[in-house]
Amino acid sequence: MNVTVRGRSRHFRTVEFEAAANSVVLIEQRLLPHVFRRIKTPDYRATAAAIRDMVVRGAGAIGATAAYGLAQGARAFRGRQLEAFERHVDGVFETLKNARPTAIDPLNALREVRTAMQVGTTVSERQERALAAAERFAEEDVEHCRAIGIHGAGLIRPNATVLTHCNAGWLAFVDIGTATAPMYAAQEQGRTFSVLCDETRPRCQGASLTAWELAQQGIRHHVIADNAAGSLMQRGQVDLVIVGSDRVLGRTGHVANKIGTYTKAVLAHRHGIPFYVAIPLSTLDWEVRDWKKIPIEERHEDEVLGAWGVQPGSSRRGYVRIANPGSPAINPGFDVTPPELITGIITPAGIFRPGELGKLRPRG
Amino acid sequence: MNVTVRGRSRHFRTVEFEAAANSVVLIEQRLLPHVFRRIKTPDYRATAAAIRDMVVRGAGAIGATAAYGLAQGARAFRGRQLEAFERHVDGVFETLKNARPTAIDPLNALREVRTAMQVGTTVSERQERALAAAERFAEEDVEHCRAIGIHGAGLIRPNATVLTHCNAGWLAFVDIGTATAPMYAAQEQGRTFSVLCDETRPRCQGASLTAWELAQQGIRHHVIADNAAGSLMQRGQVDLVIVGSDRVLGRTGHVANKIGTYTKAVLAHRHGIPFYVAIPLSTLDWEVRDWKKIPIEERHEDEVLGAWGVQPGSSRRGYVRIANPGSPAINPGFDVTPPELITGIITPAGIFRPGELGKLRPRG
Repeated sequence: MNVTVRGRSRHFRTVEFEAAANSVVLIEQRLLPHVFRRIKTPDYRATAAAIRDMVVRGAGAIGATAAYGLAQGARAFRGRQLEAFERHVDGVFETLKNARPTAIDPLNALREVRTAMQVGTTVSERQERALAAAERFAEEDVEHCRAIGIHGAGLIRPNATVLTHCNAGWLAFVDIGTATAPMYAAQEQGRTFSVLCDETRPRCQGASLTAWELAQQGIRHHVIADNAAGSLMQRGQVDLVIVGSDRVLGRTGHVANKIGTYTKAVLAHRHGIPFYVAIPLSTLDWEVRDWKKIPIEERHEDEVLGAWGVQPGSSRRGYVRIANPGSPAINPGFDVTPPELITGIITPAGIFRPGELGKLRPRG
Repeated sequence: MNVTVRGRSRHFRTVEFEAAANSVVLIEQRLLPHVFRRIKTPDYRATAAAIRDMVVRGAGAIGATAAYGLAQGARAFRGRQLEAFERHVDGVFETLKNARPTAIDPLNALREVRTAMQVGTTVSERQERALAAAERFAEEDVEHCRAIGIHGAGLIRPNATVLTHCNAGWLAFVDIGTATAPMYAAQEQGRTFSVLCDETRPRCQGASLTAWELAQQGIRHHVIADNAAGSLMQRGQVDLVIVGSDRVLGRTGHVANKIGTYTKAVLAHRHGIPFYVAIPLSTLDWEVRDWKKIPIEERHEDEVLGAWGVQPGSSRRGYVRIANPGSPAINPGFDVTPPELITGIITPAGIFRPGELGKLRPRG
């Protein structure tokens, strides 16, 4: 999407590849929203470190980064021996896979690139195919998000107020995003609307990343405390909720997403406000049948006991402790919203009720 | 309640009066939870400033502070002329009344002390009666909170987990508090239980003040992000909710309280978890008939766009900006919970359903 740099609005993707320098170019997301800077990772180890250290985060974005990282590692091989090349690529694969071991997207991306490479009969052909496959992976991520936007844009009526939680925006994908895709599409169609960004404690991705994205795109928005959404709904000030998801159970329609999503779904249901979840097809899980079996990450208590930000007028990042020193915290990272609270799932293939997801199941 | 100072647990009230020095002694609440310090205000102007600058906050606590401030001002008068004395007391009254002009508690407290003084026939008798009335006001605040505890303690079953929002603890009153009163009473009765403190963004009174209070009293507790309560209820980890209130409509049973309270009530209702509101009788409003007429303070957006705390290992208070610079926020300070979501109102006179509050209406 567009970012204003030194007064000029330019288009960027979260992840790009510079073939001449054999480098991955990433937005340094840890500095956002206070500083916009892109960094180049000159080799696959640096690319893996960028995934591990959260320079880049978000399902689609780390998938594409891993795909490019594998192509980058393959292209760095000097020699013509296929066997030595494959041993080298095995090492690259493992390094990138282990950068965020619990995430499914990098693994799927790495497998896709690896499979596409094998068709080549020479080292240089395999190197070329690796890069082509990584580019295709990134391109598909963008296409899927664009399709979500096309299907979802109509849900945003003129002058509507849309509430969103956390960041399922273009920063979490290669471009466009999922929950934000209908907003960007509605904007392209010239519609006027407004967005409420839940700040999304404890990490505040809504206040920092989503608000930054929308500001860059010139979309009217306000940040609210997570506590305020219920009262605003009660007073008729929310027309629609759109969120992303980390995992949707294809068999049952349960949606795992950032902690607080369930609360917003319960509130929306009470007030008859439509509640939509926007996802690429890769977010569908066809194995787990019981929502209680979805693993919920218990994160470090320091996230709840304090907050990260910058001192006013500065761009130096710092942490302040808010809570009583010595008091412990409980910090589940995600929650699960049951299908009866969900109006629809917006996918690249169209909008489905949670009970209809079986239609999207891959055959075989 | 008890506070551990230099390794020794001692009993303090939020507000006390030192007759020999004609001084009000206050806990400097702006330094909590990081530093416990008490300050003395040597004259009524300093006492008014302490109310205005939020050294002391909370309905009961600022009421008692204003009452003591009036006695303090009256006692500082030198002379025997009743007329000159009354002119002086008028000035004291106005100064204290204007310290927090929208709060009802200081005004009621000042009127009570003023009325009690008038019975005296000499300056010194009026001065004595002023102090006695202020002491009585503070004592009644404590007695009412104690009665709330006696009525509410039985709601906390052995090994229960109680969720509370914001701070309606002893720091907001002279002692004991309202939402915390059943907890302290259950602890006295030797019951074991645990408390979940909603951090209560944006000002985080739950993470800072309530967690501090409970830690000082040795009550097991955890801080949670406001976003986590719904998921914990869904997983059966909350048995009971108790909150305070800023205003309860006696005619309808609607409860105005810190933003986020309504959300917790909706979630508790969905999960069949009892939801109680603990209040002194002075919180009942017999005039307003329509909950939408309760004025909701829109507070400064900086509260949502950042957070106050201390740097780890320090006690120096600082503010960090979290949100995207330039993004605006909406920051309603309070919300209103309708009676159908409330199991009971715990008062010094017993526990009432929201529809039964008429029984408590003063006659005449």
